[in-house]
Order: sequence, then C-alpha cells, then structure tokens
Amino acid sequence: MARKPFHFFRSAAPPDPTPPAEEEDNYLEDYFFDEPGAMPGTLSIEADAPPPTIILIDYQPDQATRRILETPEECGPYLSSPSVSWIDVQGIGDEDVMRRLGQVFHLHPIVLEDIVNVPQRPKVEDHDDYMVLITRMVTPKENEHGFYTEQVSFVLGQHFLLTVQEEPERDCFDMVRQRIRTSRGIIRRYGPDYLAYALLDAIIDGFYPVLEDYGERIEELEDAVVTRPSRAILEEVHQVRRELLALRRAIWPQRDAINAMIRDPSPLLSEEVRIYLRDCYDHAIQVLDMVETYRELAASLMDVYLSSVGNKMNEIMKILTIISTIFIPLTFIVGIYGMNFDPDTSPWNMPELEWYWGYPACWAVMLTVAGSLFFFFWRKGWFKSTTSLDPLETER
Amino acid sequence: MARKPFHFFRSAAPPDPTPPAEEEDNYLEDYFFDEPGAMPGTLSIEADAPPPTIILIDYQPDQATRRILETPEECGPYLSSPSVSWIDVQGIGDEDVMRRLGQVFHLHPIVLEDIVNVPQRPKVEDHDDYMVLITRMVTPKENEHGFYTEQVSFVLGQHFLLTVQEEPERDCFDMVRQRIRTSRGIIRRYGPDYLAYALLDAIIDGFYPVLEDYGERIEELEDAVVTRPSRAILEEVHQVRRELLALRRAIWPQRDAINAMIRDPSPLLSEEVRIYLRDCYDHAIQVLDMVETYRELAASLMDVYLSSVGNKMNEIMKILTIISTIFIPLTFIVGIYGMNFDPDTSPWNMPELEWYWGYPACWAVMLTVAGSLFFFFWRKGWFKSTTSLDPLETER
Amino acid sequence: MARKPFHFFRSAAPPDPTPPAEEEDNYLEDYFFDEPGAMPGTLSIEADAPPPTIILIDYQPDQATRRILETPEECGPYLSSPSVSWIDVQGIGDEDVMRRLGQVFHLHPIVLEDIVNVPQRPKVEDHDDYMVLITRMVTPKENEHGFYTEQVSFVLGQHFLLTVQEEPERDCFDMVRQRIRTSRGIIRRYGPDYLAYALLDAIIDGFYPVLEDYGERIEELEDAVVTRPSRAILEEVHQVRRELLALRRAIWPQRDAINAMIRDPSPLLSEEVRIYLRDCYDHAIQVLDMVETYRELAASLMDVYLSSVGNKMNEIMKILTIISTIFIPLTFIVGIYGMNFDPDTSPWNMPELEWYWGYPACWAVMLTVAGSLFFFFWRKGWFKSTTSLDPLETER
Amino acid sequence: MARKPFHFFRSAAPPDPTPPAEEEDNYLEDYFFDEPGAMPGTLSIEADAPPPTIILIDYQPDQATRRILETPEECGPYLSSPSVSWIDVQGIGDEDVMRRLGQVFHLHPIVLEDIVNVPQRPKVEDHDDYMVLITRMVTPKENEHGFYTEQVSFVLGQHFLLTVQEEPERDCFDMVRQRIRTSRGIIRRYGPDYLAYALLDAIIDGFYPVLEDYGERIEELEDAVVTRPSRAILEEVHQVRRELLALRRAIWPQRDAINAMIRDPSPLLSEEVRIYLRDCYDHAIQVLDMVETYRELAASLMDVYLSSVGNKMNEIMKILTIISTIFIPLTFIVGIYGMNFDPDTSPWNMPELEWYWGYPACWAVMLTVAGSLFFFFWRKGWFKSTTSLDPLETER
Amino acid sequence: MARKPFHFFRSAAPPDPTPPAEEEDNYLEDYFFDEPGAMPGTLSIEADAPPPTIILIDYQPDQATRRILETPEECGPYLSSPSVSWIDVQGIGDEDVMRRLGQVFHLHPIVLEDIVNVPQRPKVEDHDDYMVLITRMVTPKENEHGFYTEQVSFVLGQHFLLTVQEEPERDCFDMVRQRIRTSRGIIRRYGPDYLAYALLDAIIDGFYPVLEDYGERIEELEDAVVTRPSRAILEEVHQVRRELLALRRAIWPQRDAINAMIRDPSPLLSEEVRIYLRDCYDHAIQVLDMVETYRELAASLMDVYLSSVGNKMNEIMKILTIISTIFIPLTFIVGIYGMNFDPDTSPWNMPELEWYWGYPACWAVMLTVAGSLFFFFWRKGWFKSTTSLDPLETER
Repeated sequence: MARKPFHFFRSAAPPDPTPPAEEEDNYLEDYFFDEPGAMPGTLSIEADAPPPTIILIDYQPDQATRRILETPEECGPYLSSPSVSWIDVQGIGDEDVMRRLGQVFHLHPIVLEDIVNVPQRPKVEDHDDYMVLITRMVTPKENEHGFYTEQVSFVLGQHFLLTVQEEPERDCFDMVRQRIRTSRGIIRRYGPDYLAYALLDAIIDGFYPVLEDYGERIEELEDAVVTRPSRAILEEVHQVRRELLALRRAIWPQRDAINAMIRDPSPLLSEEVRIYLRDCYDHAIQVLDMVETYRELAASLMDVYLSSVGNKMNEIMKILTIISTIFIPLTFIVGIYGMNFDPDTSPWNMPELEWYWGYPACWAVMLTVAGSLFFFFWRKGWFKSTTSLDPLETER
Repeated sequence: MARKPFHFFRSAAPPDPTPPAEEEDNYLEDYFFDEPGAMPGTLSIEADAPPPTIILIDYQPDQATRRILETPEECGPYLSSPSVSWIDVQGIGDEDVMRRLGQVFHLHPIVLEDIVNVPQRPKVEDHDDYMVLITRMVTPKENEHGFYTEQVSFVLGQHFLLTVQEEPERDCFDMVRQRIRTSRGIIRRYGPDYLAYALLDAIIDGFYPVLEDYGERIEELEDAVVTRPSRAILEEVHQVRRELLALRRAIWPQRDAINAMIRDPSPLLSEEVRIYLRDCYDHAIQVLDMVETYRELAASLMDVYLSSVGNKMNEIMKILTIISTIFIPLTFIVGIYGMNFDPDTSPWNMPELEWYWGYPACWAVMLTVAGSLFFFFWRKGWFKSTTSLDPLETER
Repeated sequence: MARKPFHFFRSAAPPDPTPPAEEEDNYLEDYFFDEPGAMPGTLSIEADAPPPTIILIDYQPDQATRRILETPEECGPYLSSPSVSWIDVQGIGDEDVMRRLGQVFHLHPIVLEDIVNVPQRPKVEDHDDYMVLITRMVTPKENEHGFYTEQVSFVLGQHFLLTVQEEPERDCFDMVRQRIRTSRGIIRRYGPDYLAYALLDAIIDGFYPVLEDYGERIEELEDAVVTRPSRAILEEVHQVRRELLALRRAIWPQRDAINAMIRDPSPLLSEEVRIYLRDCYDHAIQVLDMVETYRELAASLMDVYLSSVGNKMNEIMKILTIISTIFIPLTFIVGIYGMNFDPDTSPWNMPELEWYWGYPACWAVMLTVAGSLFFFFWRKGWFKSTTSLDPLETER
Repeated sequence: MARKPFHFFRSAAPPDPTPPAEEEDNYLEDYFFDEPGAMPGTLSIEADAPPPTIILIDYQPDQATRRILETPEECGPYLSSPSVSWIDVQGIGDEDVMRRLGQVFHLHPIVLEDIVNVPQRPKVEDHDDYMVLITRMVTPKENEHGFYTEQVSFVLGQHFLLTVQEEPERDCFDMVRQRIRTSRGIIRRYGPDYLAYALLDAIIDGFYPVLEDYGERIEELEDAVVTRPSRAILEEVHQVRRELLALRRAIWPQRDAINAMIRDPSPLLSEEVRIYLRDCYDHAIQVLDMVETYRELAASLMDVYLSSVGNKMNEIMKILTIISTIFIPLTFIVGIYGMNFDPDTSPWNMPELEWYWGYPACWAVMLTVAGSLFFFFWRKGWFKSTTSLDPLETER
Repeated sequence: MARKPFHFFRSAAPPDPTPPAEEEDNYLEDYFFDEPGAMPGTLSIEADAPPPTIILIDYQPDQATRRILETPEECGPYLSSPSVSWIDVQGIGDEDVMRRLGQVFHLHPIVLEDIVNVPQRPKVEDHDDYMVLITRMVTPKENEHGFYTEQVSFVLGQHFLLTVQEEPERDCFDMVRQRIRTSRGIIRRYGPDYLAYALLDAIIDGFYPVLEDYGERIEELEDAVVTRPSRAILEEVHQVRRELLALRRAIWPQRDAINAMIRDPSPLLSEEVRIYLRDCYDHAIQVLDMVETYRELAASLMDVYLSSVGNKMNEIMKILTIISTIFIPLTFIVGIYGMNFDPDTSPWNMPELEWYWGYPACWAVMLTVAGSLFFFFWRKGWFKSTTSLDPLETER
C-alpha cells in the first residue's frame, strides 16, 4: 500500500537519497498523512527506519531488573504482575514487530497507527483499559545550532507503561533510568502513572536547553542586524523564526494534552500524580511563554533589520553626496577655463586667462566654494557617524 | 430566473467564454449567491456544467454490486433495503435530474439548493431523516502548481449515502471504492455512516498532497527572495499567500462541521464511527495547523523580500559610490591642468605646466587620492559582498 | 433641539451645501449621535431628507392588494386583521408623519428614535408586542465603483410587518414584491415572519454584487501594484481598504442580530421561519468571510506595493549606475589628454600626445575599460529586467 | 505621606511648574498610583487642584430647587428625603472637604480614594447601600485639535446621586440640568437611577464630537500623506494614533462597566432604567466601533506614508537619472575632442579635428545619443508623473 | 546533581564570572529549568547567591517586636501563637538553611523547589494548611534606565506569613514595615492575610515608577526618531520593546494569580481582605493596561523610525539631485568650447570661439539653463525643508 511520510521542507529533487541532509531538517517535517482514501489502521514504515529494540525495566519498591527482550510476546507475563513494568521500544522500523506489539497490548488499530505513522500531532486519548499519550521530544544538536525532534508515544496501563520512541539514538530519559536503578527519590514507591509523569516531565524540561540556544542566537543577531546587516544575517533571522514556529507547533498541543490529563479524571492517574502533573503543566506554559517571547523578538528583529538597511543606505548616500556636490561645481569651474574662446578676437573673450592673478584667483574661488559646501554638510551633522552607538555623538 | 455563480477573480471582460482559464482559477471562486430577493430553493445551473452520471454501489458483508443508473428513480428500491447503498452522482448539470433526485430522496428545497448552487460554505445540518454534509474537495494539478477544488455534498440516511460531486472528472475516492470491491478492512461490515466517514477522511487526507506542494514552493521562494528578488518572485509570493488563504477558507469550516458531528449526537452516526471521526478531526486540525504555518512563513517571506530589495539597492549604490567618488576628484584634477591660463602673462599662472616633473607629479597626486579613497572603502568593508552567504566573510 | 447627523468623512468646509458629494460618500458616514445630554426619544430629521411614502401590501393565500396610503392612520384597520400587512415606509423626512406612525404602531420612543435618527448600528430587540430589527442595506452604484448604503428598520408584529427605508430611490425588494404579486413560491401561505425573512435575505444577498465588484477591483490592483506602482494606485488601494472596513462594519452586527433571532426563541418567529433564517445566517457568514478575505488581500497589496516601489527604484538606480560607472572613468581618461602640460619643457610631460599611435591607443584603453565594466554588469545580471514576469528570464 | 500623580508623558525636566502645558497633555496622563507600600485609603490631592464647589439640585415631579452648599454636612437632610437629590461636587482640591463628604455619605475609604486619587480606570462597584461608578468624560478643545479629559465619579444611593468632577470648568451636563429645570421629558418623574443614566448617557454621547474631529483630521491626513509626505505629517499621524489609543483606553472599560450594570441586577437600578441603559450600551459600542475604525485607518495611513516616501524618492531619482545619463555621455564626447593629441605627429592623431564637417558631425553624434536616451526614457514612461491622480495618465 | 539557572540573554562566553554584567541584565533572565529527567524537589542554588537573613516581625494590635533569627528553627514557637508572625527571609543562598526552613514550615518539596529555584512563573497554589504565592518584584535602577527584578515567594498560614526574597539588597516593603511599627492604619488589627495583601499591593504598586520611566523614555524617543534617526536610537527602541516584553511577562501571570485568589474562596483569606484584593486586582489591570499601551507606542515608533529614515534619504537625494542636475549640463557646455576643432580648416568648426560676444553669450546660456533648473526645483517645493515641523511651511 503506497504511503509516504510528508516532509515539511524536503529537498526539491524528489528521489534524493541523502539521509544526512534529511536528518538535519527533520524537525521541520510535517505531519504524516495517508494516501487519500486509504484504510484506517494501515502501518507505514520508512525503509531506513531503525529496527526496534525492546527494553524492559521492571521494578517494585525493593528491587528493579532490566532486560532486553527479543520478541514482543515476552512482555506478556509482566503486564498483569503487580510490579511496575516499563517497556521501552526504541525504533519503529519493523512492521511485524509493531503489529505483534499491538496484539500483546491489545491496542486499537488506530492507536497503533498513531504510534507508528510518525509524526502525529501530540494529544492524549483515554481508552477503556489504557491511556495513550502522543508527545514530541526535542534534543539539542551537539556541535551546531538547531535540534533533533522525534515522537515518543506512551501507553499507560494498570501495571505497565509502554513507551515507543521513533529514534533509538538519543533520548532524555537517562536521569529517570538512574533514579529507578539507584532508587533515588520516591519513584519506586509509585505506580506506572508516576513513571509516565517523570518521563513526560523530562520531555518538557528537554525544551529548555534548546530554547536557551535560541536565546543566545537572538542575542547575537540583535547585534548583527544593526552593525552589519547582510544577506547571511537576513537568512539567519528567517531561519530562527521558522524553527521557533516549529517549536511552537510542538509544545502547544502538548500543553493542551497535559491540561486534559489534569482536568479529566481517569482511574489510571492517581490524585498524587495529578499534583505533580500540575507542576509539569506549569513548565509547559513556561516553555510556551518563552517560545512566544522569542518569536516576538525575532519578528521585531526583522523590523530592525529593515531599518538598519535604510541607515546603511543613508551612510552610503551621504558619502556619494558629499564627494559629488563638492567636486561637481569645482569641475565646472575648471571646465570654464579650459574653453578655447579666442582672447585675441575680443576683449570680452576670457580676459581672465591673461590676468596676472588669474590662476590664484581661480583657486581662491574654488576653495571658497568647497569650504562653503563643507561647512554646510558639517552644519547638517553629516560628518558624525549615524552608526555610532554613543547617543551623545549623534546629538545635533 | 436570473442567477449567476460568483467567481472570485473572474476575468475583467465579462462574457469571456474561455473555460480553460476559468477552470484554472476556480479554486478562488467565491460563494454562490442568489439575485437579491430571489425565492429560496431556486436551482441555478451553469450552461457548461457536465450532466450527472449516477453510479450505485450496493454492498453488504458478503457481496457488492455496482450499477450505472439511467434515472434517479431507479434508486428508489435500494433506499430502504437493509444493504448499504452508495449513490454517487458525478456532475450537477441537469436541473431536471437534480429535481427528480431531490424528490426520490425527499430533500428539503433548501438542501437541494445547497447541493446544486455551488460553491457553498462547508457545513453539517441534521434533518430528521437524514444528515446533510457540505464539503470541499481539493486535488492537486498534475503538471503545474495549484489545485482544483469542487464541492462534494453528502446526504446520509438510514440505509443509504448519497454523494453529489460538482465535477465528474476527478475525485479521491478510488481507494475507498477498491476497499469495498475487494472487501479490504472492515468497510463492508459497517453501515453507511462508516462509508461517509471513509469518504470524508479521504477528502481531508486529500489536502496533504496539495499542502506538500506549497511546502516545496515556499522553500524554493525562501531561496529566491534573498538571492534574486524580482517582480516575478514578488508575484509568486503574493500568489502563494492568496492560494493559502483559499485553502484556509476551505478547511476551516470543515473542521467545525466535523466537530459538530462528534459533539452533537445523531442517531444516524454510531458510536464506533464517532471514534473514527475523532481521528478525522485530528487530521483536519493538522491540515489547518499546516495551512497556518505556511501562511505565517509566506507572510514572513514578504518581509524578507523587502529587506532583500533594500540589500540589493545597497549593493548597487556601493558600486556607484565607489566609482563616482574615486573618479570625480581625479577628473577635477585633470580638469585643472586643462585650463588655459596663459603662463606667459604671469609667473603665477599655472607654472606647473612647464615644470620638468609636472606631469608625473600630477599622476602621483592622482594615484594618492585614488588609493586613499580605495583604502577608505576597504576599511568600511565595502568590497566584501553583503550578499555572500558565508557569515565569516561579512564580519568586519 | 439641536441635533445633527454625524458624517464619517464630511468635507472639511462645514457648511458645504452640495448634497451630491455627500451622497457619494454616505457609505462612510458614521453613527448618528445626539448632542450630549439631550433627551432620549428626540427625533432629528435632516432638512433635505425625502418625505415618506407609505405603501401597503396586504395579502393572504388567495389574494393580494397594494395601496399607497396618505396618512399613517390608514394603517390602523390592517394591523389586527388576520391577513399579512406589509407597510413599507420609503423615506423618513417628515417628523410629524413619523411620530404619528409611532403612535399607530405603539412604538416605544427609543425605538422610534432608532428608526428615524439614522444611521444606527444593526441590532435586534425583542419588545413585548413586536420585534425590532435595524439593518443596513447596500446597493452597488451603477456607473462607477462603490456602493450606496441606507438603513432599513423592521418592526414585526403578529399580523403586520412595518419596514422603514431611509431613502426611497432604490431598494432590493423588487423580487419579493413580485413573488407576492404572482404568488410564486410559498410566500403567500406564510405569515409576516416569513416576509421579514424574505426581505432580510434580500438585504444580505444584496451584499454579494457589491463584493463582486471589489473582487474585480482587487484583481485589477494586483496587476497594477506590480507593473506600475504610482500615487493613483496607492490611493486606490487605500480607498478599497477603507470601503471594505465600512462593509465589515455593516455586516458584522447584522450577523450577530440574525444569530440572536435564531438562538433566542420569540413567539413572533415560527419554527419553520427559523429554519430559513439559518440559511440566511449562513449567507451572512459567507459575506463576512468574503469581506475578511478581501481585507487580507488588500492589506497584502500594500506590502506588494511597497516592494514594487523598491524594485522600481532598483531599476532606476541600475540604469544610473551603469551609465555613470561606464562613462565616468572614460571622461577621466579623455580629461588627462586635455591637460596642457608642455611637452617641450620635459620629455616626461605627456609624451603620449606626440606618439604616432597615441590617439588610437587611447581609444583602445577606453574601449577596454568600458568593455570590462559592461562585462561586469552583465555577469551581475543587471541587463535582465527584474520586472519581467518570466521567472526563467530572471534566473542568474 | 509622599504620593504623586503619574502623568503619561510629563515633560522630561521633573520639577517643571508650568501647569498650562500639563493641562494640554492631560488626556494622556496615566493612572494614579500610590508610593509602593502606602496605606490604602490615603488621599492625594495636587497642590493646584481647584477647590470643590458643591451644588445641590433637589427635585420631585412638581418642583425643583438648586442650591450651592457651603459645607458637605448640609447635604445630610436631603439624603433620606424621598425627593431626588443630585449633589454635584465640582473640583476635588480640598482634602478636608472630601473627607467630610465621605463621612456624610458613609463611603468606604477605598471608594473615597478612587474618587479623589484621579485618574482611575472606569469601573462599577456594587456596595450594599450605594453603587459606585467611575467614568471618564471627554470634551473637545475649542480652538485646536485634541480633547480634555477628566474623571467623573458617581455614587448612586436610594434617594440621592452624588457626582464628583475632577475639573469644575467644563462638563457636558448642561442639557440634563435644563431638562430638570424645565421638566422636559420624563426625568422628574423617575428616581436618581434615571438621573444617573441621563448623565452617563451624556458622557458617552460626549465622545462623538471628539471622534468627529478625528474623522476630519484623518481625512485631511489621507490627502497629505500622499501628496506631501513630510516630517510634520509623520508626527501628526503618530500623534493621532497616540490620542486614539488614549480614547480607546477611556471607552473600553466604560463599556464593560455599563454591561455589568445591565447584567448584574442591583436593587438600586429599576427595570425601566435598565432598558434605557441598553441604549446607552449600544452607544458605547458604537463609540468603540468608531475608535477601532479610526485606529485601523490611522495604522494604514502609516503604510501609505511609507509608500509615498518611496514614490517621492523614485521621482527624485528619475530626475537625477534622466539628467545624468543624458549628459554624462555627451560630456565624454566633448571631452574627447578636448584632448591635445598632436595631429601633426601622426595622421592617426585626431584627424577629425581638422575635418571640414568635424564640428557639425560631432553635434550630430551628440544629438543622436541624447535623442536615443530621451526616447528610451519616454518609452519607459518616466515622463508621466507617477504622482498624478488620473489613473489613465499613468497607464503604460 | 547538575542543574543550572537559565539566563535569558547570558553573555556568549559561557563561564563568564562577571556578576555585575549579569546583574544588569537579570530582568531578562528566563525561567529556571531542571536538567531533563531530574528528580522533582531538587534544590539548585547559585554559588554567588547571598546567604539568607531571617527577620521576624511579630505583632498584635497593641505591640510589635522585630528580631533577627539565627536559625530557621527559632521560628517554631511563633507559628502557632495567635499573634501575627511575619518571617521575612532575605536571600536564598544556603541550601541547608532553606531545607530546614521547609521542614519548620512543613512545605511540600515541590513548593520548596518553586521558592528556591528562581525564577518561576508567578502563580498561586492552595495547599491544605497554607497558600503559596509566587510573585515577581521590580524596582527601578537608581542612576540609569531599566529595573531590577527578583522573585518574592509568599507562604500564608493561619497565624504566620513567610516571605522569601531572592535578593536581600532592596525591596519595596519599607512603608509596610513602618506601618506595622507605628501602628498606622488598620494593619495591626488584621491577620496575616491582610499583611500578605499589603505586601502584594506594594509589589504591584512597585511597577508604576518603573513604567513611569518607560513613559519618559518613549516620549524622548518619539522626538528622536523623527529628528535624528540613528543606529543608537534604533537600538534604544528595540531595547525598550524588549524590556516591556519582560515587564509584561512579569505582570500578566500575577494578574491571573490575584484573580484566582479573589475567585476561589480559601479559608485563609477573610472576606474583608478579599475586598482589598479587588483593589489590588484593579491596579494589576491598570499596570497591564499601561504596559500594553507602551508596547503599542513602541511598536508604532519602529514604523515612524523607518519612515524617518526614508525622509532623511529623500533630503540627501534632493541635495545631490539639485547640485548634480544643475552643474552637469553646465559642465557639458563648457566642455563643448574646450574642444580643439580647428577653426582654420573650416568655417563650420566652432566659429563661436572667435565671435566677439562668444564668451559672454556662453555665460548667458549657462545662466539661463541653471536658472531654469533652479526655478523647476523651486516649483517642486524642494527648497522647503521636509523636516520642518511647521505644517504651513510644507504646504505646496
């Protein structure tokens, strides 16, 4: 069945098989879509998607074990045991495994589709036996600007939590794993709902380092747009705006989802965890708040850029005008005395050329003209740089 | 009775009979309107509208038949039979047929008017015996940018689904027809409400390929506005904004209509189908989300364009200023020594002309002036291209 | 008691008695206002307002009569008769007649004030015995752009409908009158509420032809702003924005009023008419939708205009720069050999002047310089017109 | 206790004691604020505030008396008498009087603070025995643009209405006073709630003449920004925007307050007065509607201004370019024949100088060049003025 | 455990240990965030945070004492005594002290985290035994523009109020302390809820002086952008916009928090205090109102700036055009008579050179040309300064 993921800004040449480039831009990819009319529940997996690794972490207050499972069916016994079982599936690149996983967990075909056909819009859905939460995780790139993004799906049951990550390479759950292993804090004493909160909180907190990077980039750009407006800076500003738009699209529905979890009581979420979720909701609002602030700053940067270009043009025009208007009259004067009217045929024909002080007088006139114009421009304040940052210097 | 469809941007010459041009622009056509004061229920059919073809697909879990009906009255027996009957009317170009169709299905005159007098704003209306759903279907053009748009009206009854398509040429229902024929999935086991969902889902999913094309166009324009801002690019950006506005007007009311179907319980929609509709609603929100994102990007492109034009002008001005300010003083100097003051009448009259090193000294002065100005511009960084994309190169 | 209507853009000279000019601008006039502190219920009639004509159309399913009444009191007998009586008052220019009309219909003083002191904001008010509806009717001008606007007030009672039109010259009710006369459709079988619906529907539908005209004007302007940005085009764009703003102010409160009629049940409106009003409400939303779309397009036109002016300036600058930078160096060169250094006093003084190939060599140098600069500009793509519409031509 | 009123745009030099200037700008003054941490209920009166005059108007259906009271205590007997007592305090410049007034009317300290520490944001507060309404009254300036603004506080009790005006000089209540004196209309037959309505209505209606003035200014500016964009016009547009912002801040909360009075039933407001208040609410919405319209027009004017400046620059550049590009090549040509190559040393050295038709041929070449360029510019349409208002003239 | 505060615009070099610079920018610092996945309840204290000083003020109607406590545990006895105990903790720089404080007051770990890990978004949270209020206090800088900001956390119990200030140096509570000490007003007669109100009111009122400063800066900038648009002014405008954005982020959630306190009844807040809180809420709305007004003005300033730059450029271009277009034709004329056509070889070769009135005639031609151009520019009004503020002067 023909399906394809929809990339927001995929390269213009359609069959471009360079995955690194695609990798780099994938935080701008847009939502997955089916071929119109396709059957609901169809799974669509990209050829190069990494195959899934299934990691089980099973814990109760006094012990915790970690196993890598070979087949989804091995999860079965853990699902109904009273201990908390966290099944973490990293990678979605095997349709057969994903289907069997759906059967083990009794997932509705549409739910399985939401998990596998990435990216989906973040949301929460309350089914009878389990709650499904689609989230979007961002992680900053190491050596350059920008961020990676991937979908993390949660299926929360009575005694288990299933998480499915789109990419196996990186996540921001290491600290939670450590807390389980070392039994730090209260995590082992609570059920899978607390675990889901802890992971969700880690995802929301993961937006902060990414945003911090944008704060720095905007600060640098604020200098740059005023001092050296150029095509590269212009593209950078536009790029920042585009990426912040993508971030906003990632966090906005997540905030709504968390709010729905707090507001609509579900038997799967205990009262205590709901208190913690309020904290998580506060963080989501803070993130959104920062994104909006940065977006306003970036939009205002474009205004500043435009004004800077105008200033720069004024500077250039001033130089041209000063030089031109001083020398053009002088050139006219020297042109006069380059005329070949014959002084011999008439006393009116350029007698100046034969005066004793003719040449010095000509210079005197020219210096007077140049000086007057110079004084005129000085009075208009054109010799004070308008690009100086010292406000006193630009006072008239 | 005088009526006419209202085209958003019809060509200025009113009786222009060139259908291809009209065809090309019809996704911008605006809502149909009656002559003020006309009777409600009047049907208005364009002369060149294609005549309707009536295709019946009747199915139940174990069998499915397909017939092309000659007259609307042939539908009659199927309407009350327990099997699901899908009557697909392709084209609306025959008032008589449409009226008889209305009688067969017992449609209210205002409902028939909404179906025939296209385009109408998408909406859902719950009548006693049937539910009416007006939708807008978009299909991408094959070899050029843009999209076709047409109205598809649904009338959902107890045992039947009537769909009326404005244009017979193309639709995005082929996959659904195939699913019925091959009995893929669960479609044959459900009633006409599931069929309506499946078709509606196909319509919503049909927006994605169109949007994908806009994503690519915007990406191309992002390059173009910075590197070569021109009148053609400007018109292209404006065109994209205009078309996205049209898309938004098509999807926005459809989202509201689906939401109304989920929210307001109707006996014609089963609980299970309502769950599927939630998925369809998610897709509608995703589409709207993408349209809004593209609209923001396109609006921001206009800012970038304006800034680019300013940059370009700066480049031009720099060249003019460099050349002018270097050569104008030099021209003045050579003008001086073109003056005809008579050296013979006075020792003060241009004695330089007769000096031994006069001419080389003149050159030395000129080269010094040119070099100083050259150095001045180099210090100001004017020889580094501001249109370079390498940020390092534009550092001062 | 001193009162005066408030015109939005009245001419600067206050006592300007030219009614045609005022007529032309009256769709921009703003709401009527009393002198602060004036008594509620005071009527204020302009001196040149046309005197009212009272036309009665009385009908029941099997007959319809039309009479022109001399005095308001003649209405009396019709008001309580079971037949439907439509009293259409055209013109409000006689305070005495209006007051007597108010007495005949038992109107509250504030209601009469709303009817007479035009313009008022459209609204609906439910009194005990009657319902008052203030609407705004627009009609396109015949031979020029723009539209006329006037207030139409409805008073709907048990057996009658009173309509008061501000201007007698034109309205869009002719089709409704014809339907009553010829008994087309169902109008004669329904009560005055259906008549009110039919007239209201005619008013809403009357916005479409006006909007159609704006669609065409915007389309023409889209071409014009790119190809020939000028002061006239700029004013035209601003004018269109201003008029669309006026249209929006007219339709927005009307949509609210119709919504209130649908939502709040009144015994004066039958259930069936409420179904028809839903259709009318759909049209009002469509009109608003179109107005908003046109407003966005017009606002975006201003951006395009600004960018076009920048492009135009670039074109002009390019021509200046090409000509200047090619000829200025050449002029410098010819200036050199116009210098009068005396070749006789020194072998260093301009020996070129006496070379055998001096003059041809000079030309060779000049042609080389000009050719190089020409090549430089050709490489920068300056000879390709940036105002060409063919995108291929503007590729670098 | 240190307190000070906070002026929006007070002059930069802090201890500037020039009250007239302050007076002129006071419609932009911002809300009053206490020193942080100061005790609630502290009164802060400016040194130059005018001392209060207390005017009592006591009326019942058949009689009305007017007295100027010396002390607040004289109000006492009137407060509980069944006749309607309107105590109008003009000016708030005496802390002692204001405190005693508060005691006579049993006002809560915070209420008294709201009345005295002007300006406050308009609002309505329902206390047990009385209702407090803070409003803002605007009055147009006589001989110049702009408006005065002052706070008017209402305290409505069972049998009395207390109004406190910030400034005694002007108000818009004269017509109401006259209606009481002459017993015009129904005012004497109603209670203090109707009086409060009448005064509030006068305040709202008082916004119309001010807005009318802005309508005229905007109309004038619409011409000016296109025909002669200048610094003075730019400041005027900005000033209008700033003042409309101030107007909006004044009317917006007042609309909310009136709405609250209509919505929340209070025993102090009779049903009948509430009907009148609905009319008053309509007017407040109309005023807000006009303010928003003017704000949109003024914002759009700034766009027009920017475009006009660009047009103007294009005009200037065209003149420069036409003159420069025509004469620069000619100057080059005449420069050629000013060169001093010696025709005697070589037949190749400028033989043209000695041709018989040399000089006329030179002129012929120059005229050809000039004519070609002239034709080129004429073809580009540069000689048609782009600032002409006749659209036909600017057609290419 | 690795944690770090997140500064909005921290300097680009990460380990920059210069606290004064950081101090200066700290009102733009963004919300605190944990390392993703970190345990909730972890405290993170900056190395250079000032150690806490604990000041106890214990009062009842007839007496008040003030003590500086050495350890948090000393608070214990006061908490349950009926007198009001205000424990003011200034500085949060000691994790051990803060933890012990949390134990003494029985604070939930997440509450303690909100208090210590600054900055947090302002909010109110109702726990069983106490109410937590996170606020943001701003104080104007003494000798420069801008403001300091710090978090103040309130914990309100039955008999105590705990406030924790981020910075010990400055606050705006001195007046409240004085009122307690001198028993001014009613503060000693009320409980800790009134104290909390008084402090919160002081914090809200503390925004006014800061805003007053922005009002003055915007007023100064309004002049500056028109008369001397420069890079420094541009940066100043952008800076003001950025800081107002920060102010808005500080006051917006505080308004919501106060509203929640008024709306949701808590046993810890008495009815009377809730009336006072309504006043405080009014002030918060006023502050927000002013911030929004200033933001609109500052945004509009950017438009004005852009227009001013355009005006300035027009001025420069006019000077260049006047000088160039007058002198370029003259230079051409004098160039003509500098040509060396030999008058001897032909009567057509420049006979003018030997005319008797040749030279004076040449001057006459040149003066005529210059005069005509001068008159042309004078007619276009170019000699009137467009930067003049007198509108009459710029009339054509």
